Amino acid sequence: MNAEIISIGEELLIGQTINSNAAFISKLLNNAGVSVRQVTTIADDEDEILRALKDSAGRSNLVLITGGLGPTRDDVTKKALCRFFDCALKTDEAVLSDIIKFFKKRGIEINELNRQQALVPECARVIRNPNGTAPGLHFENKGKEFFAMPGVPFEMKAMMNDSILPIIKKLIPDPILIIHKTTLTQGIGESFLASLIAEWENQLPDFIQLAYLPSPGIVRLRLTARGKNERLLMEAIDKEIKKLKKIIPEHIWGYDGDTLEGLLGTYLKKRGETLCTAESCTGGYIAHRITSISGSSEWFKGSVVAYSNEIKQSFLNIDKTLLEKHGAVSRQAVEAMAVNARLKMGADWSIAVSGIAGPAGGTPEKPVGTVWIAVAGKGSIKSRKFMFGDNRERNIIRSGVAAMGMLTALLQ
Amino acid sequence: MNAEIISIGEELLIGQTINSNAAFISKLLNNAGVSVRQVTTIADDEDEILRALKDSAGRSNLVLITGGLGPTRDDVTKKALCRFFDCALKTDEAVLSDIIKFFKKRGIEINELNRQQALVPECARVIRNPNGTAPGLHFENKGKEFFAMPGVPFEMKAMMNDSILPIIKKLIPDPILIIHKTTLTQGIGESFLASLIAEWENQLPDFIQLAYLPSPGIVRLRLTARGKNERLLMEAIDKEIKKLKKIIPEHIWGYDGDTLEGLLGTYLKKRGETLCTAESCTGGYIAHRITSISGSSEWFKGSVVAYSNEIKQSFLNIDKTLLEKHGAVSRQAVEAMAVNARLKMGADWSIAVSGIAGPAGGTPEKPVGTVWIAVAGKGSIKSRKFMFGDNRERNIIRSGVAAMGMLTALLQ
Repeated sequence: MNAEIISIGEELLIGQTINSNAAFISKLLNNAGVSVRQVTTIADDEDEILRALKDSAGRSNLVLITGGLGPTRDDVTKKALCRFFDCALKTDEAVLSDIIKFFKKRGIEINELNRQQALVPECARVIRNPNGTAPGLHFENKGKEFFAMPGVPFEMKAMMNDSILPIIKKLIPDPILIIHKTTLTQGIGESFLASLIAEWENQLPDFIQLAYLPSPGIVRLRLTARGKNERLLMEAIDKEIKKLKKIIPEHIWGYDGDTLEGLLGTYLKKRGETLCTAESCTGGYIAHRITSISGSSEWFKGSVVAYSNEIKQSFLNIDKTLLEKHGAVSRQAVEAMAVNARLKMGADWSIAVSGIAGPAGGTPEKPVGTVWIAVAGKGSIKSRKFMFGDNRERNIIRSGVAAMGMLTALLQ
Repeated sequence: MNAEIISIGEELLIGQTINSNAAFISKLLNNAGVSVRQVTTIADDEDEILRALKDSAGRSNLVLITGGLGPTRDDVTKKALCRFFDCALKTDEAVLSDIIKFFKKRGIEINELNRQQALVPECARVIRNPNGTAPGLHFENKGKEFFAMPGVPFEMKAMMNDSILPIIKKLIPDPILIIHKTTLTQGIGESFLASLIAEWENQLPDFIQLAYLPSPGIVRLRLTARGKNERLLMEAIDKEIKKLKKIIPEHIWGYDGDTLEGLLGTYLKKRGETLCTAESCTGGYIAHRITSISGSSEWFKGSVVAYSNEIKQSFLNIDKTLLEKHGAVSRQAVEAMAVNARLKMGADWSIAVSGIAGPAGGTPEKPVGTVWIAVAGKGSIKSRKFMFGDNRERNIIRSGVAAMGMLTALLQ
């Protein structure tokens, strides 16, 4: 089955916003066995939308539209859809009640613009939007299917996953299955990993493809198998991953949607233990990643972000002479930070990071990208020096990944 | 002048790569006074490329194409261009010499595939590529201009900036200029903002358009003016923004690329003052945003991420009876956190946040999304309760935005 995506929004055509929605939708459709033939990006303009709808429907059986469903005047997608399908707008009572509830929860009375969000083309089936006020719309016309979604990524993604994809899957009678499994590695760069696993890569069967997906500190290895029998595909992939595990056991830390912070939570909860962090150059990044996990208050006590030496002294009892002698970016300092944070915050484990994120602050002996990380537990401490690059943002991320990776390896 | 972009590449249609090239090109064209009417994304397929070329040339005078110029079998853009312009491929000696030099520098002998990169349509003018082996191509046909570039962002960007944009600028004798200015607002939702400023929106002159761009906690208002005289357009936009400022002074915090953390740094440095944070539900998110700013160690002391009540007591001296009586999510708790953090970390200003990010932890009196924020300075304190939604990630972001917004308003 062929699909097309129509992305609507002036912001996409002036280069203010990158069209990440289209990539998200394409990926989901692809995994469901639907090929995307074209993505068309146009402005919030009724005539342009009408033209794009005609063109796309002329080529493909499935058309997904994002953007222009909002409450403000520049949002004209609903009007264009009414013209294309030759039907009028009417108020949908269920949507209106959703909108009233949405705002009531936030203690706000709705206004006329909010009320207009409940106006939907009468020839459309409404798709409820639990995360916003603009509902999605589903049209069937001459054997073709059309879905319109809001352009806000957060709302679109939930609607696509929860409501639209299940409908699309039912439309495909005998799909070619595409199965992905991603192995997560850490502590080794893409090209070194590639040469380590070259032989394994060469012996993969024809129906399994390998892709390398690098991100700061992490390389994901995605295996993709195509065929008709789900069980056989899964078994073939699992067999290959077993072989891979024997080659690089120390680098594999998880699979698919696993995150380091999520696994830390899983391991710590299982052990009934707790964690705290003492962060200098990561500036709260690790604590932020950890506290993004729902329920992390069960196993995460807190963090001291010691961005100044005075706070390292007053909150973490780091000896002034130690800092003067070895500097804040040193094994001595980071080990003391880890040990004292653990005791002062009453946690079983602690992570401490001190480094030079850059672009300023480097010296010949300790250039930008020098990062010391320590992980302390009861009666144990492990510390390691890393040399990252000269990009501040990437140094913060890589420090966080390396630090959580060190603790994950100890706990798993 | 109208332009269209044709992005070619299977990776864009399976969602593996986000089409950032189109946004980059759009922005450059827009600033040069060229409107992008459509972006068309298609696969590396001769027939599809031919169709897209016909469609785009039928609508617009300028067509920019990226992708499919590489040396491997899946790159068919040159073949499609030859069919579209009805001409043959021939070896370009200057390009061949560039390619030989390119590989020689890297100590590599060129192979047959590399040699084929020097084959170009004989009706094209060649655009040299200093960063790679695939040259750019420029065609003129029936008064329309076509440019083909490699899809590798690094090569495309240099070619676009250094070679193609100067040619395009010469094509526009009397360009219609497009000027954008974006006003950043905070503390008010899109639809309420729209009704507050409806009268102002109605009186905007015809040559100025308004667009609403919402993201968690922030609505950006983009004004776009089109005309011939840059100074007059700028003045007209400035005049409208002055009027807007009178209507919603408390919601405007910045313009264009400003960030809250960046402005906090600007204001604090100017005042020679410092900041610290005490974070509960934001879990280090605010500290992380702040420390992402290069040089923030000049004005940011650190943070206590007090994810447990014990840390609120031991690190921030919050009275146990206060916590028992009012709870951690209360005006009393958050004000005490702000006042004590400021004193204990020796900063001029402090931000404290305590709330229920969800999805667990809500009660009928304090549902998920309830967040208290306090900002303390010397002898001053300001606190406010917010009711956000039920998505953890968004609640953390919105809390951070609201907190930094409160302090920005005090300092600006």
